[in-house]
Amino acid sequence: MADDLLLGIDVGTTNIKALIFTTNGALAASASIATPTERPQPGWAEHDPSALWQAVVDVIRRALASIDDPRRVRGLAVASVGEAGVLVDASGAPLTPIIAWYDRRTAPYVQRWNVHDDPLETFRLTGMLPVPIYGVFKLQWLRDYEPDGYAAATTWLHVADYIAFRLCGARATDYSLASRSMLFDLRARRWSDVLIDRAGLRGDLLPEPVASGTRIGVVTPEAAAATGLAPGTVVGAGGHDHVCGALAADVRRAGDCLDSMGTAEAAFLPLDDVPLDERLFIANVSSWTHVTFGAHVARDRYYVMDGLFSSGAAVEWMRGIVAPGASLHTAVAEIEALAVAAPPGSLGVLFLPHLTAGERGAFVGLTVSSGRAALARAVYEGLAFEWRHMLDHMEQMLGMRARTIRAIGGGTRLPVWMGIKAHVLGRPIQVLDIDESVALGAAALGGIAAGVYGSEDEAVGALRVCARTVAPDDALHALYERIYREAFLRLAPALAPVHTALNELEMP
Amino acid sequence: MADDLLLGIDVGTTNIKALIFTTNGALAASASIATPTERPQPGWAEHDPSALWQAVVDVIRRALASIDDPRRVRGLAVASVGEAGVLVDASGAPLTPIIAWYDRRTAPYVQRWNVHDDPLETFRLTGMLPVPIYGVFKLQWLRDYEPDGYAAATTWLHVADYIAFRLCGARATDYSLASRSMLFDLRARRWSDVLIDRAGLRGDLLPEPVASGTRIGVVTPEAAAATGLAPGTVVGAGGHDHVCGALAADVRRAGDCLDSMGTAEAAFLPLDDVPLDERLFIANVSSWTHVTFGAHVARDRYYVMDGLFSSGAAVEWMRGIVAPGASLHTAVAEIEALAVAAPPGSLGVLFLPHLTAGERGAFVGLTVSSGRAALARAVYEGLAFEWRHMLDHMEQMLGMRARTIRAIGGGTRLPVWMGIKAHVLGRPIQVLDIDESVALGAAALGGIAAGVYGSEDEAVGALRVCARTVAPDDALHALYERIYREAFLRLAPALAPVHTALNELEMP
Repeated sequence: MADDLLLGIDVGTTNIKALIFTTNGALAASASIATPTERPQPGWAEHDPSALWQAVVDVIRRALASIDDPRRVRGLAVASVGEAGVLVDASGAPLTPIIAWYDRRTAPYVQRWNVHDDPLETFRLTGMLPVPIYGVFKLQWLRDYEPDGYAAATTWLHVADYIAFRLCGARATDYSLASRSMLFDLRARRWSDVLIDRAGLRGDLLPEPVASGTRIGVVTPEAAAATGLAPGTVVGAGGHDHVCGALAADVRRAGDCLDSMGTAEAAFLPLDDVPLDERLFIANVSSWTHVTFGAHVARDRYYVMDGLFSSGAAVEWMRGIVAPGASLHTAVAEIEALAVAAPPGSLGVLFLPHLTAGERGAFVGLTVSSGRAALARAVYEGLAFEWRHMLDHMEQMLGMRARTIRAIGGGTRLPVWMGIKAHVLGRPIQVLDIDESVALGAAALGGIAAGVYGSEDEAVGALRVCARTVAPDDALHALYERIYREAFLRLAPALAPVHTALNELEMP
Repeated sequence: MADDLLLGIDVGTTNIKALIFTTNGALAASASIATPTERPQPGWAEHDPSALWQAVVDVIRRALASIDDPRRVRGLAVASVGEAGVLVDASGAPLTPIIAWYDRRTAPYVQRWNVHDDPLETFRLTGMLPVPIYGVFKLQWLRDYEPDGYAAATTWLHVADYIAFRLCGARATDYSLASRSMLFDLRARRWSDVLIDRAGLRGDLLPEPVASGTRIGVVTPEAAAATGLAPGTVVGAGGHDHVCGALAADVRRAGDCLDSMGTAEAAFLPLDDVPLDERLFIANVSSWTHVTFGAHVARDRYYVMDGLFSSGAAVEWMRGIVAPGASLHTAVAEIEALAVAAPPGSLGVLFLPHLTAGERGAFVGLTVSSGRAALARAVYEGLAFEWRHMLDHMEQMLGMRARTIRAIGGGTRLPVWMGIKAHVLGRPIQVLDIDESVALGAAALGGIAAGVYGSEDEAVGALRVCARTVAPDDALHALYERIYREAFLRLAPALAPVHTALNELEMP
């Protein structure tokens, strides 16, 4: 047992990673590669399935190179982005490109759904309001624009499912990924025939959904030859990336809260049940930010989540404005130094962090006094206000209040940002020292599937995770509270007509 | 006559300049120094009258150092910022600091005027809507907060008046500066007893207003000793800086238009008469930008003008964001290069150039694709849209259309900016090759006063000014027209409540 290792594979928006951990979560080996992505048209993004598999093969092989014996890897699972997938035929050959989760080509299908179908009924079943990224719309697009591939297909596999399938030959998905399709009956934990019919899709394409951590197969001789894994290594059902991260962070119970900081940033609250009623539907559609409900990778649990698409992306964008050409390390240190040099409130500059996914953001309140420092701090403050707004909205909708807030991900390494977020929230944040929570969560699921752990509680309990607490300052919280209520909450509604007009103008 | 020289003194917001010209406007000598300015409190700015005089002495002395014989300088006049002045006693000693034109301390007096007094009547007499910068409010503030100085004073002198007084001992002002006080009956060309009474001010403080170019005195022996000027050099009445620039640019007739580009930027239309009626008042108060009417330094003419406070200031601000620490020349070249690298429309980024004078500006429409180039181009486009809006508004109010647009000032040296402005306007712009139009206009007034020129027409005709035409592109104009109408015109009204909220929050 002391020599046992577990492999977590994390297929993300930007990078694909293979990480090998000991059973108490210490990192033993890792490798990373850029996610192969093509952009055939403005607004479109795709991954070639074979290129994606080759990238996974490459990172597994490189991670294993540091391990004396691949047979020490007792189990593995794959976590991935949530809404993307591929149609494969009976032989397992991919028939279509993987439409990236954030691809915009499916936007017209949302309007059609909202007009012809029943958003309230959809919400009652799936916990979702229609947005273009969901799997249902990708399948409709493939049906309409790749009819040959759609006709020849036998199975729709999400990205993590597809990688697991290439490793072990099993065609399955898990509840957390299934619940990102808007075709999944969340409380019944099965595909919804009602919605499949309404969408005009083939229900036979959808793979069997199982609980995350279920053993779905073992590494085939072919996959073993390609990757260097030992044949027979157990493959467990993995899950949606943020949700696997929540498992590693032990954010599984109602009253917990996860702040998952990456290129995007999620606010994630575990739930014991999902009360998908009309009241909740109305509260959700009435806000400018819409939450989704889904199945946790923790057994029998649910979650409510909201996402800020451009979080780390906004900091990265700011880095390109104020420190172009600098190394990541230098530039991030400069942004931290700038942000701490400006006074709280950034001299009245407000930042609206809606920089991706068809949205537009803003800096407002600018004066000649608001230089680089005020802009950098305003980015942090705007991201904190927006995350606060997501959390507030979810807590109000559900009539609950998070007792603890845990933060994971790249942004947690920026102390000025984390301090500002604690002051904006007026609550302490526990920053977990997990570099790769998504892969660690996947590895834990692999360990559960392999029987290395006797239970989910045992798995999570075995992971040694250090935390430090970032405390709010009362005076700063009072200042931020006023800025948030008096100014920030007005910003997105005020700019909506201007941003709509800009999006409707066709520009070169 | 061929050897005759003229001195123009330009006391500006940022710099004080003395320029010596030949009678056909060729530059013979010049000197410049930073305008001495103190900022005793946030929002306040002052100039010490003695320090200001010493700075003028210094630049005159340095400019004269390149001239073989100071007696060649036949005449001089002073142009200055518009709304600032100083109270002096019977001996001519200054009793108060000069409150800078853009100082904000007088804001409460505007509210009082609008509530207790009659803005329509004020407009009928002065052509102005109350804003804090006008002379009337500075005098009210001095009355209330510097009562000893106010009681001991014998004369209120605008900045240019004060410098001329120090040079020749005459206490006078000219119509163009008088008309920046909101105490001047514009069509009668005399101080308004009605408004002086309403303001509760001492009318005896106001100096005799004369036409610009009137001979008001000669350089005294004391001033000659200080400056190096020859005693007896003729001093003419000068005027308000932008308006002196319009004279040098030969923008004197209805149908002409001046774009005067400095730290601030003015749109200036000469008028034969000022129809200050109720219809014009309502049109003016109903817009988000308010025009003022005033007396031209050209004999018997008027003007309507609107000002964009942060024009060059916005480019300077952008320079601090994208090229901190770079030399002016390098940084400006970089902003031009960035702006030309972004596509027209700046990828949907819009800039609202309200960065000073208590206003707040914005970048909206931001996405992760909008980097430094899009931001730099958006600054130019936003400045052009705002100037276009000022011109549109004035032309609509007055039922006229400018036949020619001439541009002067620092911004004209930036060809990308000028091109964008022509495309936004859809009209050609004549860029005049005058580096120092304000001082040249003042020097011409000095020459008229000294009899070097027989008339104003002769003076303006003698100045050799080269022009190049920047032509609009029809396709770009069509694009900009859509952005302007669909998006830019909505921006300031949309943000008004957010910016009001930000200004009302007290921040550190």
